[in-house]
Amino acid sequence: MKRLLAPALASALLLGAPAAHAEVVGQTPMFNNGISLEDVEVAQRDWGQRLIEISVAHDEKGMDAARKLAEDAIDTAYGYTIGPVLFKPTLASAPHTFRITREGALSYFVGGNPDYPEDKGFALKSWRKYEFHNAALFVAGNTATTMGTVTLTDKDGKVTTVDKTWQFYKDSKGKMRIVLHHSSLPYTPEK
Amino acid sequence: MKRLLAPALASALLLGAPAAHAEVVGQTPMFNNGISLEDVEVAQRDWGQRLIEISVAHDEKGMDAARKLAEDAIDTAYGYTIGPVLFKPTLASAPHTFRITREGALSYFVGGNPDYPEDKGFALKSWRKYEFHNAALFVAGNTATTMGTVTLTDKDGKVTTVDKTWQFYKDSKGKMRIVLHHSSLPYTPEK
Amino acid sequence: MKRLLAPALASALLLGAPAAHAEVVGQTPMFNNGISLEDVEVAQRDWGQRLIEISVAHDEKGMDAARKLAEDAIDTAYGYTIGPVLFKPTLASAPHTFRITREGALSYFVGGNPDYPEDKGFALKSWRKYEFHNAALFVAGNTATTMGTVTLTDKDGKVTTVDKTWQFYKDSKGKMRIVLHHSSLPYTPEK
Amino acid sequence: MKRLLAPALASALLLGAPAAHAEVVGQTPMFNNGISLEDVEVAQRDWGQRLIEISVAHDEKGMDAARKLAEDAIDTAYGYTIGPVLFKPTLASAPHTFRITREGALSYFVGGNPDYPEDKGFALKSWRKYEFHNAALFVAGNTATTMGTVTLTDKDGKVTTVDKTWQFYKDSKGKMRIVLHHSSLPYTPEK
Repeated sequence: MKRLLAPALASALLLGAPAAHAEVVGQTPMFNNGISLEDVEVAQRDWGQRLIEISVAHDEKGMDAARKLAEDAIDTAYGYTIGPVLFKPTLASAPHTFRITREGALSYFVGGNPDYPEDKGFALKSWRKYEFHNAALFVAGNTATTMGTVTLTDKDGKVTTVDKTWQFYKDSKGKMRIVLHHSSLPYTPEK
Repeated sequence: MKRLLAPALASALLLGAPAAHAEVVGQTPMFNNGISLEDVEVAQRDWGQRLIEISVAHDEKGMDAARKLAEDAIDTAYGYTIGPVLFKPTLASAPHTFRITREGALSYFVGGNPDYPEDKGFALKSWRKYEFHNAALFVAGNTATTMGTVTLTDKDGKVTTVDKTWQFYKDSKGKMRIVLHHSSLPYTPEK
Repeated sequence: MKRLLAPALASALLLGAPAAHAEVVGQTPMFNNGISLEDVEVAQRDWGQRLIEISVAHDEKGMDAARKLAEDAIDTAYGYTIGPVLFKPTLASAPHTFRITREGALSYFVGGNPDYPEDKGFALKSWRKYEFHNAALFVAGNTATTMGTVTLTDKDGKVTTVDKTWQFYKDSKGKMRIVLHHSSLPYTPEK
Repeated sequence: MKRLLAPALASALLLGAPAAHAEVVGQTPMFNNGISLEDVEVAQRDWGQRLIEISVAHDEKGMDAARKLAEDAIDTAYGYTIGPVLFKPTLASAPHTFRITREGALSYFVGGNPDYPEDKGFALKSWRKYEFHNAALFVAGNTATTMGTVTLTDKDGKVTTVDKTWQFYKDSKGKMRIVLHHSSLPYTPEK
């Protein structure tokens, strides 16, 4: 039997350029809406980099620059342009615990919205470094879910660690988008 | 054109008996691995009922009965028999924050495992009533994700509310299984 | 427990307006990338109507009008804009059996491409009526597959029946697109 | 940032042992219901090998041995145990064109069923060699669709080529099953 694809090529296909979606490998054109681990890693790293870029922009260029980057993150890295997003940010509380809409998400990241007076702007806390640890992954269909911790360090070296769950949806153009984001402070047992 | 299916029949198919998987409707046999809202509702309610049954069994019949029901819940309502589960329970903390294995989940629900000495048994807290509020849903392929609050009331009327995210996976026999469960105490803003 | 959704509303949601994708039903915003039977029926009917419109346009307005409608069908009802399409048309043969590209598909429907000299234009055969019979359906994730017969009648009442398989892919905007189309003449047993 | 997985490991995971479903790679447990190209290749090859084994068993051991292997193929390589299968065999015709049930499929492969008197047993034609050529692939969620040609050679060296479409469904145990099979003789253009 003719091999479907040489293993090296198949590997390149699934793990290669993250946005690749429709491709010709050897003789076999392929439409692949599946998700590779590389897709997941790139999407997680993208979230971290954007957060830091917003913080740096705020510290160095001011609020307008930060807000512009935050809007871009929400419209590109999240799925608000295609539907509601299941977003429970770390520091959000009732009655605004869940930020299903773009407006609620933007307020959480950069504040300044009178409808959410409690928001101070989580992305404005001078973050400078991020690190992920995935405890486990679940991949099915065109979504992948990750659970683990995210550690953020600010410009003064102060470290914050949160428990974080993300679900990424690969849209029909091959773009990974956050459709679920549940972040929470670690539980501290009573002594 | 001949209608594919009469609307009433189609509705019955998608929203009917939750475990239905392969069926004949009118003239068209169908293999449907998709998820209906009824599937989601039944799976959520199943989780709540099992939690209360474990509590009641513990109060009325003792530890062995409770443990048996907890094992059944973990093996049936969760996906531990088919893979790791992304489970961050409300009261779990480092180094046991994530209960990826069956053993860790069981310890969280009923305690008694020397490897997890901090576990007191979350399901043993005399729960008597549950109520869900879904803030938003995401359905794609054979999984559905829900985010919202769960309110539990114990036998003394004490009420606990948590922020909760679940992802349900519909297996190839049509059974909904929890593959992700992130639960966290509400954030309390500093004054 | 609060019901997730009243059954009547859930039914409306899954079977309602075919392009509906992100919606608010009752209190629960929802992002649903699943496929309803109504989605399948609408997509099949769309294919039939477009074929007849091309035929009528050709008979009444000429080749340019027919070609324009054919291009629109290929770009909208098929998935060529997002990837290769697995298309084995009824009357295609080696070395052009499989029309993976937009160009090959267009030539099959309206002819006139010197690279495919055998193509006479299947959509130009004065079709006036179509009828589907689905033998079985398979739905999983954001695709649905149908198998059955399609009967076409031309303006002189001549009837053609073919065995046909389609796979529809629901893209991230909720649009159903043909990603697989295998059509073949019925097998005639030797006597 | 810590890498999610080293590329070499990720490659091994996605393209490695075909039935692997729940695994630990490095530090990250993973539940992967996605489909790799290796999964597709293994499933196609499995179909070819089983066909030849049935033929050889029939020639060397007789009808009972052939039937037993055919039943195993239908129950294992196809999806009849979990739902109807969309099966249009090469040589099936009305009123038995579509073999949605296990019984119809078995009759097609080994004959001997008075309800399908036209069936001579396609798997009994002394097949000795198979070769696949995939024209294109479509992967989405837990299914993969392939389209191309299959060439079969019998013990006398007679060659038969058919146009073939398969859809494979990866069940929740990681087993690939044929849920769609449309096979047709090549179209011969009139001169």
